[in-house]
Amino acid sequence: MRILKLIGVFTPESWQGHGFGADSSDSVIAAGTDMTNKATSKARGPLTWADTHHPGISETKGEYDGRWVYINDRANGRIAMVDLRDFKTKQILDVPNLESSHGGVFVTPNTDYVHISTKIPTLVDRTNIEKSLDNVAQAYRGYSTWLKVDQKTGRMDVSQSFQIEIPPYWQDLADCGKLVSDGWGFINSYNTERAVGGNMEGKPSLEVGASQNDFDYLHIINWKKGAEVAQTKSKVINGMRVIPMDVAVSEGLLYLAPEPKSPHGVDVAPNGEYISVGGKLDPHVTIYAWSKIQKAIDDKNFEVGAGPLHTQYDDKGHGYISLFIESAVAKFTLGEPYFSGDKAFKLVDKVSINYNIGHLCTMEGDTVKPAGKYLVALNKWSIDRFLTVGTLKPQNFQLVDLTTEKMEVLSDMPIGIGEPHYVQAIRADRLKAWEVYPVGTDPLTFEKSPTAAEKDKEKVERKGNTVEIWTTVTRSRFKPDTVKVKEGDKIIWHLTNIETTPDATHGFSIPRYNVNISLDPGEAVTTEFVADAKGAFAYYCTEFCSALHLEMQGWLLVS
Amino acid sequence: MRILKLIGVFTPESWQGHGFGADSSDSVIAAGTDMTNKATSKARGPLTWADTHHPGISETKGEYDGRWVYINDRANGRIAMVDLRDFKTKQILDVPNLESSHGGVFVTPNTDYVHISTKIPTLVDRTNIEKSLDNVAQAYRGYSTWLKVDQKTGRMDVSQSFQIEIPPYWQDLADCGKLVSDGWGFINSYNTERAVGGNMEGKPSLEVGASQNDFDYLHIINWKKGAEVAQTKSKVINGMRVIPMDVAVSEGLLYLAPEPKSPHGVDVAPNGEYISVGGKLDPHVTIYAWSKIQKAIDDKNFEVGAGPLHTQYDDKGHGYISLFIESAVAKFTLGEPYFSGDKAFKLVDKVSINYNIGHLCTMEGDTVKPAGKYLVALNKWSIDRFLTVGTLKPQNFQLVDLTTEKMEVLSDMPIGIGEPHYVQAIRADRLKAWEVYPVGTDPLTFEKSPTAAEKDKEKVERKGNTVEIWTTVTRSRFKPDTVKVKEGDKIIWHLTNIETTPDATHGFSIPRYNVNISLDPGEAVTTEFVADAKGAFAYYCTEFCSALHLEMQGWLLVS
Ligand SMILES: [Cu+2]
Ligand SMILES: [Cu+2]
Repeated sequence: MRILKLIGVFTPESWQGHGFGADSSDSVIAAGTDMTNKATSKARGPLTWADTHHPGISETKGEYDGRWVYINDRANGRIAMVDLRDFKTKQILDVPNLESSHGGVFVTPNTDYVHISTKIPTLVDRTNIEKSLDNVAQAYRGYSTWLKVDQKTGRMDVSQSFQIEIPPYWQDLADCGKLVSDGWGFINSYNTERAVGGNMEGKPSLEVGASQNDFDYLHIINWKKGAEVAQTKSKVINGMRVIPMDVAVSEGLLYLAPEPKSPHGVDVAPNGEYISVGGKLDPHVTIYAWSKIQKAIDDKNFEVGAGPLHTQYDDKGHGYISLFIESAVAKFTLGEPYFSGDKAFKLVDKVSINYNIGHLCTMEGDTVKPAGKYLVALNKWSIDRFLTVGTLKPQNFQLVDLTTEKMEVLSDMPIGIGEPHYVQAIRADRLKAWEVYPVGTDPLTFEKSPTAAEKDKEKVERKGNTVEIWTTVTRSRFKPDTVKVKEGDKIIWHLTNIETTPDATHGFSIPRYNVNISLDPGEAVTTEFVADAKGAFAYYCTEFCSALHLEMQGWLLVS
Repeated sequence: MRILKLIGVFTPESWQGHGFGADSSDSVIAAGTDMTNKATSKARGPLTWADTHHPGISETKGEYDGRWVYINDRANGRIAMVDLRDFKTKQILDVPNLESSHGGVFVTPNTDYVHISTKIPTLVDRTNIEKSLDNVAQAYRGYSTWLKVDQKTGRMDVSQSFQIEIPPYWQDLADCGKLVSDGWGFINSYNTERAVGGNMEGKPSLEVGASQNDFDYLHIINWKKGAEVAQTKSKVINGMRVIPMDVAVSEGLLYLAPEPKSPHGVDVAPNGEYISVGGKLDPHVTIYAWSKIQKAIDDKNFEVGAGPLHTQYDDKGHGYISLFIESAVAKFTLGEPYFSGDKAFKLVDKVSINYNIGHLCTMEGDTVKPAGKYLVALNKWSIDRFLTVGTLKPQNFQLVDLTTEKMEVLSDMPIGIGEPHYVQAIRADRLKAWEVYPVGTDPLTFEKSPTAAEKDKEKVERKGNTVEIWTTVTRSRFKPDTVKVKEGDKIIWHLTNIETTPDATHGFSIPRYNVNISLDPGEAVTTEFVADAKGAFAYYCTEFCSALHLEMQGWLLVS
């Protein structure tokens, strides 16, 4: 296992020039914080950070199709879209009415919708914030959100989207129905006790208060019908069509089924029939059969080990479930048509991992067609596996062989660049990533930019206090290489990398102006700023591109 | 090869909570931009980005000692210090009079000083900025900067530091003398033509204009004497003692020796006697002998291949030089005492790499005691080595075996998280990194924080509009877990991770306030902000810490 690339999404990332002056990324990040409708700190916003948890690769007929990937912001109730043509972030959406989200991200089998739900419910009755926790049932609400995907661009369109109001529990992991259960979605919940803590006042801490009841509730949602009901029986709140909870219940959009207390993962098997729920505080996994859910609840429940969290599948009717407390992966069998009689719903193998596994991932293991021979264990703690590199330790991914009779750990990979939460594994041949852009391409539209600079047509134009510059970028020069402006001028600078060779990326940095842009081959970018600092600024190429890379610079003189 | 950890330095990094509200990192980043003495954009500053190029691990008697590492900002003329006890950034210094820097970073053999020099010279005569490029010789200056290191904290102390004014060439790579050449430093230069471009006006592009002359100049600097001269014959400019160029020459601090045109790397051999200069535009490497430099110049010059850049050494008298244009590493012999007669100064082996090698690194290969059997090639282009992951490709590190008769490439490692420039390799047993902090430690001082929260002494205090909070953090709760304040209150929030178990890191995020902090075991941090957004904010732990991690949250009610 090795990391090929990190993609800047919510947080500015300087190597990729993500959020350091390029219009194509700055505009995405800026649009990603709703400073008007949501209570965001004006002094500290817009948001430049997120807690990404759950990616959702786009699907066609329940298989990954390699077009887009969506990923949520746990902290702030947002979601982003990365285009897998160029592996860049194209949209960040601050989802109306969501203040947080967790594992509720998935796409529907043809990517008509991408789903995201609240984790911690949203304060909706703002009349008495101070006492709102005394009255969670009335003051707070959850939202199961179905974001309509534009099939041409992959972007989420709020005007075509809808939400289903759900109870103010803490909604956790979720998954989409497929094949026999197509049209439905499943969301786990916990803290149906609606505990709010208060440990300084002698009340039980949240982790105690939220674990009192024997049951929480699996939310079963009919999204196909929801899309119809939203047209007539919703009300618009903060720009989003919301179906009220009573309508959702009366229309048959929302059912609550009891599930073992404080569950964590809910994962639908490839055939859409079985739904595996991890018990978290209990050594059991519970398997719901969709055909029986439709009649009545009749679940299978068997012991797998301590702290069962998430399930992934292979194509032979096995589930693989992570055991956080036991630091292990358990392999179990599903029922018909895979296994029958006493061969079904049984623990068949277990392997120890190092340590504290959260999610796990089999190859395309959450699609209708799991493909692989391997499993990756996403271990939250690495403890003693690696050299000590300070007080913050990396996490540990382990590769597990599924082809041998007993599962076997093959290798470790330290992850010291973030706390990855869930991952998805896609077959390489499903990706159709571009090597280069056609020269002059705007990365936001994938089309020719009307302001792209062209070879031998470079120019500098002044209109009043605005200076507009068209610069070509190639090995090993910027043209023009000297730009003279006046203090206070507004600069609109168009840069185009006119190279057609794969890997011939150039950078464009302006010292002391906090501008750094990555110009991939063919890419056209614009940066705008006011020349408010006087001096001689040596702009230069930040990607080592050629033997004369160190000569690739120019002068911006601000006088 | 595998990556154990990425360290946030100049750019905020959310996993480590670097620059997202923690006083210990926010204060470092804020102090890292001089908004007063340097021409920095007020609208776009302070700087949150850097182009890190050259690390310098601290040394004792010319060997790495594992205390600190320094790294420069190529774009903005800055330098940072990372403490290797906890692998965190403790200081960012916006170096007076430097507008940029490149490869001029090294420590002296006992880390008395860390050196950084200008790359692009600094505009010093600001009377006619617009015409300043017509008069580079007068209007611009370079600075060889010797930053005094506090031996207790590793921090650079400007008041004890000094600069030597150097000509307005482009100073490039540099290295420090050692053993026989101790007390001296060496800096390459190029563009001694002082070309400024002007390609829109029909003048030659910079990469042409800067490559006209047959020779550039190796700068040879007596820093030990410089430290003395600085006490009496310097003038203070922007808080830094500067020795003027004429004084430097008359006092024998600065010598210029001709070197082949547009050289790149200058690297001093382990014994301090040989100095290898890469020709860049020429297939030759030039070796200077220190004993002969002191009498007169008498260099050895032999062909190694196209585009020689940087040299590293082993302990047997070999140099390994990167060939950018040829995409290869060449191995050559040094002279006495390693090799003599026609065995000396010869190309002895070459290995192809993939592709376009910039720097290279042997184990501790820039110290007095190179140790290793391996070499890492830092290849700027990967082209076809990896799956295509969009238009921006990773770089490629290759591991080369030096123990076999012919050098051999053993493996590839994609680098998709930045453009690494130079690296250093340190023996693991020289590192003495901490596993945990003693409970209540301020990471900036490594001492007990006076504002650390203590178990069972948690509290919330209001004084006027200021609310001060002392919170303990442990599996799986914050105490207090409910904080009620008024809109507009100033919040001073002290958080202490009271865990003593290695790897028991917790996070602390406040949604919509752009606050995310990493609290390693024992760590005490303070975050201050104004509660300017009204609502119910579910603060929570962002590091998966326990089976009840998802219950680890609290409520900040702002009403
Ligand atoms: Cu370039
Ligand atoms: Cu925690």
